[in-house]
Amino acid sequence: MARLVYCNGAFVEEAEAKVSVFDRGFLFADAVYEVTAVIGGKLVDFAAHLARLRRSLTELDLASPADDDRLLALHREIVHRNALDLGHVYMQVTRGAADRDFVWPARDTPPTLVLFTQTRATLEPREAETGIRVALAPDLRWGRGDIKTVQLLYASMAKSQAKARGFDDVWMERDGFVTEGSSNNSYILSNDGTITTPSLGRSILPGITRQAVLRAASEAGIAVEERAFTVAEAQGAREAFITSAGAFVTPVVAIDGVPVADGRPGELSRRLRRIYLDEAIRSAI
Amino acid sequence: MARLVYCNGAFVEEAEAKVSVFDRGFLFADAVYEVTAVIGGKLVDFAAHLARLRRSLTELDLASPADDDRLLALHREIVHRNALDLGHVYMQVTRGAADRDFVWPARDTPPTLVLFTQTRATLEPREAETGIRVALAPDLRWGRGDIKTVQLLYASMAKSQAKARGFDDVWMERDGFVTEGSSNNSYILSNDGTITTPSLGRSILPGITRQAVLRAASEAGIAVEERAFTVAEAQGAREAFITSAGAFVTPVVAIDGVPVADGRPGELSRRLRRIYLDEAIRSAI
Repeated sequence: MARLVYCNGAFVEEAEAKVSVFDRGFLFADAVYEVTAVIGGKLVDFAAHLARLRRSLTELDLASPADDDRLLALHREIVHRNALDLGHVYMQVTRGAADRDFVWPARDTPPTLVLFTQTRATLEPREAETGIRVALAPDLRWGRGDIKTVQLLYASMAKSQAKARGFDDVWMERDGFVTEGSSNNSYILSNDGTITTPSLGRSILPGITRQAVLRAASEAGIAVEERAFTVAEAQGAREAFITSAGAFVTPVVAIDGVPVADGRPGELSRRLRRIYLDEAIRSAI
Repeated sequence: MARLVYCNGAFVEEAEAKVSVFDRGFLFADAVYEVTAVIGGKLVDFAAHLARLRRSLTELDLASPADDDRLLALHREIVHRNALDLGHVYMQVTRGAADRDFVWPARDTPPTLVLFTQTRATLEPREAETGIRVALAPDLRWGRGDIKTVQLLYASMAKSQAKARGFDDVWMERDGFVTEGSSNNSYILSNDGTITTPSLGRSILPGITRQAVLRAASEAGIAVEERAFTVAEAQGAREAFITSAGAFVTPVVAIDGVPVADGRPGELSRRLRRIYLDEAIRSAI
């Protein structure tokens, strides 16, 4: 347990990393977060994560805990202090601690800022090779999934229940359309060679990896369409995959027990993963 | 700051009451809570709060932090240690601390249990006399509002935004129907003398005060109908009110700027408040 955690101004051992029970992150899920991948000790897509954090803070009228330079320095410091080579940095900002009241506390309440690292064993886990099998669940999350808040109970529950039923993860659906995975964006490759993923809006998280992968696909001459797709479309697609800062690009080989195409990872999914990772490694800071 | 908080096995001063940053209540809003009113140092409707806590734990497959006798003893002890006469006891249970993962940790992960008290100045605050004016906001909460989780960001945001616009609180609406207040159930008294409140289901919290007030109304010979009502119905009603463990029964005198009847607290709302409080005081333990 040698991990050092940044908690409200200090680096401390993880067993000592604590927040007040009056923290609004604990009492009201009044908090936002970002997860930045680390490869070779460097931060992947960091500027985009910072930009999305700024958007989340603005949408919720949350105070900024530090300026961009300071947040970058903290990320680099926590990577260094934990000698992190491969993994990610988790950062959470809350509205701070105040006696419990639904009404937001005074604007000068200091926000809480927490960062910690998690390691990963390999850039190429088994799922990248074999693909994952997803269950389906109704999307019961709140109506502003575009803001990256810690209101993650339902996504966590849906994934846990899918795992208990023998699936690897879950895709959520609303009104017959696939919205997102538990913590990743969802895609299909149609039989006409177009990559389709739900367009951004109030129920779709503007994924950082999504943005990078769509850009990479366009640059590689692959048609991209941003629109909702149905479960049936996905089950009948040529390929399916997910993206996130943790999964990068990971093939989906079955949806609710129905194999996608021949039930094996698709060529394009694998190719996009390589393109994405090459670029991520090249541009990491 | 002499308040003593119960936190995972010990009573500590509030400045020392902390949980791990890895607590799932902090990272995933993976937690449920109850708020029990205290009048004259006694617990109001405590058995019903415990029963609802048990239901929340079961729905989320959360481990119980203690048996009913122990939870009652802890409530009594925290009231005693803080010499609380009038106010409430807040209790939160989380899935405990574990390294961050959407998938639920091992079932033997010890749940986190936190209790604290808050005092109130009077049983009869100004709003009970004057009534409150509510704004309207779309109900963007998750699809299982019947489970009392700490995913309260939206309710908190909607109330804060209503306050900033000069209202006292907010009523939320979905598909044209009023669902709930920010942290209370909503009611109207129709012109035919019937009390109407949304029927229980997946978007309505089974309020403990709701249950007691509906029982009291029935016993007083007042007709009660559990069904959804529209904003227009509410604005055209004879009376409107809310109930919660904090508000008891509080009249609503205007909805989105439209006065309810003559814009003054209704007779029945006041009468139900008295009936409810008399019974609450009589049966408190």
